[in-house]
Amino acid sequence: MISPEFEDIRELVDQELGRRLPAADQRPCSLHGAMRYSVFAGGKRLRPALVLLASRICEGDDETALPAACAIELVHTYSLIHDDLPPMDDDDLRRGKPTCHKQYGEAVAILAGDALLTLAFELVAPMPAAARQLAVAAGSLGMIAGQVADMEAEGAIDRCGPEELKKKVEYIHRHKTAALIRAATRMGALAAKAGSAQLAALSRYGECLGLAFQVTDDILDMTGTEKQMGKAVGKDIARGKLVHPLAFGMEESRARAENLIVSAKEALELFLDRAEPLRALADFVLKRNT
Amino acid sequence: MISPEFEDIRELVDQELGRRLPAADQRPCSLHGAMRYSVFAGGKRLRPALVLLASRICEGDDETALPAACAIELVHTYSLIHDDLPPMDDDDLRRGKPTCHKQYGEAVAILAGDALLTLAFELVAPMPAAARQLAVAAGSLGMIAGQVADMEAEGAIDRCGPEELKKKVEYIHRHKTAALIRAATRMGALAAKAGSAQLAALSRYGECLGLAFQVTDDILDMTGTEKQMGKAVGKDIARGKLVHPLAFGMEESRARAENLIVSAKEALELFLDRAEPLRALADFVLKRNT
Repeated sequence: MISPEFEDIRELVDQELGRRLPAADQRPCSLHGAMRYSVFAGGKRLRPALVLLASRICEGDDETALPAACAIELVHTYSLIHDDLPPMDDDDLRRGKPTCHKQYGEAVAILAGDALLTLAFELVAPMPAAARQLAVAAGSLGMIAGQVADMEAEGAIDRCGPEELKKKVEYIHRHKTAALIRAATRMGALAAKAGSAQLAALSRYGECLGLAFQVTDDILDMTGTEKQMGKAVGKDIARGKLVHPLAFGMEESRARAENLIVSAKEALELFLDRAEPLRALADFVLKRNT
Repeated sequence: MISPEFEDIRELVDQELGRRLPAADQRPCSLHGAMRYSVFAGGKRLRPALVLLASRICEGDDETALPAACAIELVHTYSLIHDDLPPMDDDDLRRGKPTCHKQYGEAVAILAGDALLTLAFELVAPMPAAARQLAVAAGSLGMIAGQVADMEAEGAIDRCGPEELKKKVEYIHRHKTAALIRAATRMGALAAKAGSAQLAALSRYGECLGLAFQVTDDILDMTGTEKQMGKAVGKDIARGKLVHPLAFGMEESRARAENLIVSAKEALELFLDRAEPLRALADFVLKRNT
């Protein structure tokens, strides 16, 4: 458990997701079943928590921020479903359960991902600034750019020099992971109509937190157990993925994650004590082993 | 050529799409290359033309409607890319060219579709009503519902009675095709801030036109040549797809398409002569053999 506040938010978000997703017995049942299966597969709800916590410290209300919080979790879930597909990472397990395409078949999994992405934009349609933020962060110059770079970097370790490897891994992390996590804090600030100093501070926090998250994820892929991770470990390395410790060394990767978390917390200074939940969340990202 | 006005619109839309899509030499180049390859593969731009023509007859300006017009073409293109993938329709040709995954590989094709869908919502983010309309029409209760029903109806001809087949084919057409075409005319009306009578009339026109479009498409799959269609013909039937003439008979399918076009044109009465371009477009849908 990260904090009681985080647990409350998780419940709030899960209830709202349950209301916004079509029922599993609504036609087409296979599609709606697959959408719910993946959304309720045990995600930590980190991104929606960031939206709500960012909104709260800018004195926004939950009701306004909640659709944005749900939308970003739907985008995250769609990206996992498509990522796990055979032409991409070809994963059988996600959060300890069969991946969406293993459970529902590839065609339904592709369409369930498409439908979650589309629903996300239905939820944020009434909030133009947040909608634009989400689209840019998730698009071909954001998260998807990172996915492509991640795929194209397979085997890079055998053909690139050390400096090039470092550049590649930083590009991948900034796009694949940090873009969406940064968007989460920004969407929370936008929902709360925060001023530019607050928006900039939360952007910086989100960016550092997102980078730290992926660095620790890469470390855990090399050091964690399958039970801890809910998915096969060591698989990224086995398939030639360019993970952070391969480019920087384990020692430097750990230091990098720690420094990023320090920077993330420093960015929050102007919020004084009100930012404690976001600081606690940053510490959790560094220390988590699940 | 449908009409000089239609040709002008096509050029306007193509220019704007060219501006809005990231350049093919912008990183990741494979992704942006694939997005442009599919968007500029020779589509007729029917849906964006409907957005602009609907906006014009409601006295809206092109500048406001153009992002919505581009967005709907991006959604249409993404749906074709994902539809053509091996786990779905497994098509090698689209508009006379190799399909996106044949040209760029499956992983990039999936991501290019995702990125086009995401870009569509970036374009309409400043227009909440149009954005919502697009999301609902393209989502799990709209176009994607139709795709799933279309897949699940494969082989239905061997296991369902005649009445059930008719119901299935109508559900598929209403969702797979008509939902997005109806959304096009509605988005044009919304961009022009049309009144409720105009919105209702354009909805009805779009719905009838969309249904007629898919009925004629199904007929052409049985009677057209590969050169006319730009894709393999007879393939739908060969793989057990439930096309309209199989459920209703060729004679009744032709009559249905004609009646739908009459209804589409009747819906436009309140626009008097200003609706001539939309009437001409309806006639084109019926008569086209490409």
